[in-house]
Amino acid sequence: MTHRIAVIPGDGIGNEVMPEGLRVLEAAAKRFAIDLSFEHFDFACCDYYAKHGKMMPDNWFEQLEGFDAIFYGAVGWPDTVPDHISLWGSLLQFRRQFDQYINLRPCKLLPGIKSPLADRKPGDIDFYVVRENTEGEYSSVGGKMFEGTDREVVIQETVMTRHGTDRVLKFAFELAQSRPRKKLTSATKSNGIAITMPWWDERVVAMSGHYPEVSVDKFHIDILTANFVMHPDWFDVVVASNLFGDILSDLGPACTGTIGVAPSANINPEGKFPSLFEPVHGSAPDIAGKGIANPIGQIWSGAMMLEHLGHKEAADAIVTAFEAVLEEADPAVLTPDIRGQGNTQSLGRAIAQRL
Amino acid sequence: MTHRIAVIPGDGIGNEVMPEGLRVLEAAAKRFAIDLSFEHFDFACCDYYAKHGKMMPDNWFEQLEGFDAIFYGAVGWPDTVPDHISLWGSLLQFRRQFDQYINLRPCKLLPGIKSPLADRKPGDIDFYVVRENTEGEYSSVGGKMFEGTDREVVIQETVMTRHGTDRVLKFAFELAQSRPRKKLTSATKSNGIAITMPWWDERVVAMSGHYPEVSVDKFHIDILTANFVMHPDWFDVVVASNLFGDILSDLGPACTGTIGVAPSANINPEGKFPSLFEPVHGSAPDIAGKGIANPIGQIWSGAMMLEHLGHKEAADAIVTAFEAVLEEADPAVLTPDIRGQGNTQSLGRAIAQRL
Ligand SMILES: CC(C)[C@H](C(=O)O)[C@@H](O)C(=O)O
Ligand SMILES: CC(C)[C@H](C(=O)O)[C@@H](O)C(=O)O
Repeated sequence: MTHRIAVIPGDGIGNEVMPEGLRVLEAAAKRFAIDLSFEHFDFACCDYYAKHGKMMPDNWFEQLEGFDAIFYGAVGWPDTVPDHISLWGSLLQFRRQFDQYINLRPCKLLPGIKSPLADRKPGDIDFYVVRENTEGEYSSVGGKMFEGTDREVVIQETVMTRHGTDRVLKFAFELAQSRPRKKLTSATKSNGIAITMPWWDERVVAMSGHYPEVSVDKFHIDILTANFVMHPDWFDVVVASNLFGDILSDLGPACTGTIGVAPSANINPEGKFPSLFEPVHGSAPDIAGKGIANPIGQIWSGAMMLEHLGHKEAADAIVTAFEAVLEEADPAVLTPDIRGQGNTQSLGRAIAQRL
Repeated sequence: MTHRIAVIPGDGIGNEVMPEGLRVLEAAAKRFAIDLSFEHFDFACCDYYAKHGKMMPDNWFEQLEGFDAIFYGAVGWPDTVPDHISLWGSLLQFRRQFDQYINLRPCKLLPGIKSPLADRKPGDIDFYVVRENTEGEYSSVGGKMFEGTDREVVIQETVMTRHGTDRVLKFAFELAQSRPRKKLTSATKSNGIAITMPWWDERVVAMSGHYPEVSVDKFHIDILTANFVMHPDWFDVVVASNLFGDILSDLGPACTGTIGVAPSANINPEGKFPSLFEPVHGSAPDIAGKGIANPIGQIWSGAMMLEHLGHKEAADAIVTAFEAVLEEADPAVLTPDIRGQGNTQSLGRAIAQRL
């Protein structure tokens, strides 16, 4: 059985890390006899948008819905296309239209990558952020009144549904249940955001009844971000609304020093639509074109994609491979961000070879 | 001229740290010949609420509006009163009704207080978070539909006004202008929260025209939290909406290890209504009653209050005094949270004596 993968490198360093992501996927496919086929799409600011004045063709949904997964680089080129246009015209469309309602990001200390936190070593920090990915604070409902005057009022609505909330909570509880510590932390702000968040808390309590083995706690988002810094070892699975999850899934990798190499999965768990796998980093206009971007985020995202497609062994082998290359720490291989003198290709090649 | 101060110790450790805050204020008042008068109020869960079933009497506004400032401990006792009730019934009422539209919090590495970040020392981190404190994401507008069913939808509106936004930006630009680095960072999320936040960005640009000497940058809130951990030295003054400011002003002190001792000012800059000064920490039910809470947050808040009342020299003297006591690091004086064997009173007394 062939897995059909849509490949969208996107903008900037997306185009540089994607070939290494594919290289490592191909090496894994060979070793584990997995049949992958790739088809490329040019949906990016500096590509499709530059030619057609929009991010994607009108029939993008039909073009992509038949794929088993989307392998994504990074989108955005603010010099020519404002971010809210490029993102709402592509990435955020996928998340919504393909109902990728789970955004999953691992936060893990890696060998050879310096964490900004004092006195932490690999093994100390190893948790997942499960983020709601389709509704909540990222809504398109709202508008302006008295525009351009001193009386101007701007409103944006947070919209949460029981359907949307319960399914992300369920996913998070299942994930927690499958892990040794069986611990779930909910991000809330029920003391300040006094309509939606107390209700979110109630849904967590309701869902917890179905998972008696999972121990549950909650923190307000302000002190939760503080605890990511002070006590990152407390966490196992953290579940959060769209905005809170967005924040926590950047902050978590920042605490482990892995923000440049962290992966992310946008998942439709039922497999009705393709899921999307992308590094957490963006298109990085400041280093684009230099060939020095670290490809591990793309490669690790590829591992998450293989796991989603049912190849956990191959996924684990990729992670083991890049951890080994990081541990070896050959300066000629590593990219400059992790104190090497190599480049995107040398690091990608070394990881593929290790496989 | 007498400054009339309303004193509200609140719940839990609020009652333990407040006497030390007052002790130090009295010492400063004596040394700098400042005339302070204090009047106590019992607006707390375990006090007024327990007797009357509400947080404050109906005429609280009239009772308090004539004071020059409110010196606040900590409110909240979730075992008996849910947080959103105690807070919307007191603290959040003050912020709104007394139009304390600025929430100001310093983030500063202190001598003798261990930061969770590696390789940072006093002087490396020293910035302010300026938070909008009356509108935005903390709104009371919204509600539920199809309640209790599978179709349930819950909505809460973020409401921003030009009036409310411009005045907090103005305060932040003025503060940045008054500091040596003259640098302002704006917290945004215009790539995801696509109605209110792009508009916030426009207001920042418009205001920056009036402050040509201030250099301005902006970050999306997700990567901004990451940068607080990775590059806390980048920041001088950070301005943010109500929710983003709430997060950043807990995360900032967490990065400096000072979350248990950080102060906070809720300011009505025009002085039309009393401003309110409170430690960042809460009522801490887990250690309440033991007499071991660290009183520096309350004492430092007192310093901010004196500065607001026009006594900058006295305010600086208080900060110098507790920095000296921290530097001296006598275990018999310090509280257990900072590796001492003393208690709330021993630390408060030592600081007062130093003055
Ligand atoms: C207690 C809570 C409502 C409050 C807030 O979020 O404003 C607190 O976190 C603060 O920052 O003062
Ligand atoms: C680019 C942006 C809209 C996006 C988000 O906020 O969802 C990004 O930060 C992410 O986390 O994938």
